[in-house]
Amino acid sequence: MKLASDRRLHPLGTHRVIDPPGAMPQNAWKLDNTPAAYANEILCDVEVLNLDSASFKQIADACDGDEQAIAEHVMGIVRERGKHHNPVTGSGGMFIGRVLDIGGALAERIELRVGDRIASLVSLTLTPLSIETIEHIDLGTGRVWIRGKAVLFESSLWAKLPTDIGEGVALAVFDVAGAPAQVQRLCKSGQTVVIVGADGKSGMLSCAQAKARVGAQGRVIGIAPSDQTPAARTLIEHGFLDHFIVADARSALDVAEKVAALAPELADVTINCVNVPGTELGSILCTKENGVVYFFSMSTSFTAAALGAEGVGKDVTMIVGNGYARGHAQTALQTLRDNPAIHAYFAGKYADNH
Amino acid sequence: MKLASDRRLHPLGTHRVIDPPGAMPQNAWKLDNTPAAYANEILCDVEVLNLDSASFKQIADACDGDEQAIAEHVMGIVRERGKHHNPVTGSGGMFIGRVLDIGGALAERIELRVGDRIASLVSLTLTPLSIETIEHIDLGTGRVWIRGKAVLFESSLWAKLPTDIGEGVALAVFDVAGAPAQVQRLCKSGQTVVIVGADGKSGMLSCAQAKARVGAQGRVIGIAPSDQTPAARTLIEHGFLDHFIVADARSALDVAEKVAALAPELADVTINCVNVPGTELGSILCTKENGVVYFFSMSTSFTAAALGAEGVGKDVTMIVGNGYARGHAQTALQTLRDNPAIHAYFAGKYADNH
Repeated sequence: MKLASDRRLHPLGTHRVIDPPGAMPQNAWKLDNTPAAYANEILCDVEVLNLDSASFKQIADACDGDEQAIAEHVMGIVRERGKHHNPVTGSGGMFIGRVLDIGGALAERIELRVGDRIASLVSLTLTPLSIETIEHIDLGTGRVWIRGKAVLFESSLWAKLPTDIGEGVALAVFDVAGAPAQVQRLCKSGQTVVIVGADGKSGMLSCAQAKARVGAQGRVIGIAPSDQTPAARTLIEHGFLDHFIVADARSALDVAEKVAALAPELADVTINCVNVPGTELGSILCTKENGVVYFFSMSTSFTAAALGAEGVGKDVTMIVGNGYARGHAQTALQTLRDNPAIHAYFAGKYADNH
Repeated sequence: MKLASDRRLHPLGTHRVIDPPGAMPQNAWKLDNTPAAYANEILCDVEVLNLDSASFKQIADACDGDEQAIAEHVMGIVRERGKHHNPVTGSGGMFIGRVLDIGGALAERIELRVGDRIASLVSLTLTPLSIETIEHIDLGTGRVWIRGKAVLFESSLWAKLPTDIGEGVALAVFDVAGAPAQVQRLCKSGQTVVIVGADGKSGMLSCAQAKARVGAQGRVIGIAPSDQTPAARTLIEHGFLDHFIVADARSALDVAEKVAALAPELADVTINCVNVPGTELGSILCTKENGVVYFFSMSTSFTAAALGAEGVGKDVTMIVGNGYARGHAQTALQTLRDNPAIHAYFAGKYADNH
């Protein structure tokens, strides 16, 4: 296929940007979602979209949880923007599908063949997507089964699906693969680590990685609204946490006081995995001076974090959760393999069953 | 003075929160701005507000640069919220004033006396403020001279004004004091450092600190829209930069290509000081794998940074600019003392002259 215009093919996909001209694909309002592979692209038959948790929650809330309304909302976003880029949350998700075509300039340079099943490891906010029909929505997981096509750029990350882990589980894990990889880097033996939002996908994987890193001398403290959910019970019963705190992460003082009661010196590292806004300050307050707060949640407000730390005079290093880290997909899968209880929980919740 | 309600005085000022109940002062929509000092507070006679650059730009743009309209806009925010917390940008600024009263529980514990002139080092977004009149607005600097009262909490940071540096200059520098302190920590000898938005207040101080840190073997590359402004000429003529790139920081590819032309290995550390949205990706693209991007700009979008790095498959550590670092006010003032050319430039631009 040839480009109609004279735009130069670019590894970052700028040749797909329609509006505004000159923007990067993620910053663009609208992408060209023509379902065909240019020379440096990969065309995929999409089976499932795994919407970002903050984005799906916003859409589901706006549609009062009605499946048909959610489907129309998702179709509307993609029709207007050529990508699933939620204009309210600014976030997207990722997809699973099968390779249909690989551009000639790329085919010999990558370990991928037509017919391979892959998961995209870049955000839907920059992935050209066209949807023919929406077949099913799983309200519990934010997974959307569709018939449609997506395009991956030369720079886009992807992973072949593993053979020893179910597809639904792999997709759920890839979606938050940055979290366990970053936790693995940040946490050290003997440290006190607080995981805010311990009972979500990224939270559970972070707990497992944190506990493995801090060891017997260290402590992992999980925070979630209830200790009676299946996720919380999995964490508690299988020893992924040293302490469980029941708290609303938005109640900054309550969170800080409960952490201080368990660990008066506060946390060396705090990992924020909560998909609701307004939890920045609680995470800052439960971290010690010179500690690290890692914000993995897409609901994080940059100004709330920056001004929050200043407002309470807390000298902490606050890190923006990068969705990518080298080898993150493999680290995330290995976290499941190393922790069968979490793998079993994920299999129960995220296995394909529609 | 006694609290009308039975709310417990708290070091973080939660006793001043009106709406929503239970919120922290910064997250609150509305604070009690009663101009009196509770037992753990400091009451100040405010002379000047130094509005956050992103906030002032938004207000000035919304008011077409009209001084009277800006004054009414500022008054309106403070009347509604009991603090200068711009609801659009989420940011505030700081103030300069004279101590009027110190609560009995605090007076003996701090090095401050009634009559001392101080600058607040916490954001106006959490500082109870009442304005009687607005006397003058400097459109060039975002400084607003008022008659009014502000309250500092026990945890609030403040600094006595230096005697060897003019007040206007000290205030301008305190407002961005986190930047040079963080640059001093992050940059190391021999590194390549890119300062995006080199010609602003935080940018200039960051350039000076970065050049001092990287030394003769390192390189500092400044980026700004023009190399003909007085700020740019100051940086270039006095050797604070090794290279100056003229570029629009929002043009991610252009920025990346120009940096790569000078430093093919890209930046070890990139400091983003630009007060316009949409500059996250350019900063990410000009940073090397495993490098650090420090976002000092309050215009930074958390999701644009997080998803941007993932979208281009770049494994960088992205840090939220903390407005506070231990000793940051002294570091910022010392940066001026050590760099007379920048001190002279700031004196020309920010000296009191109304």
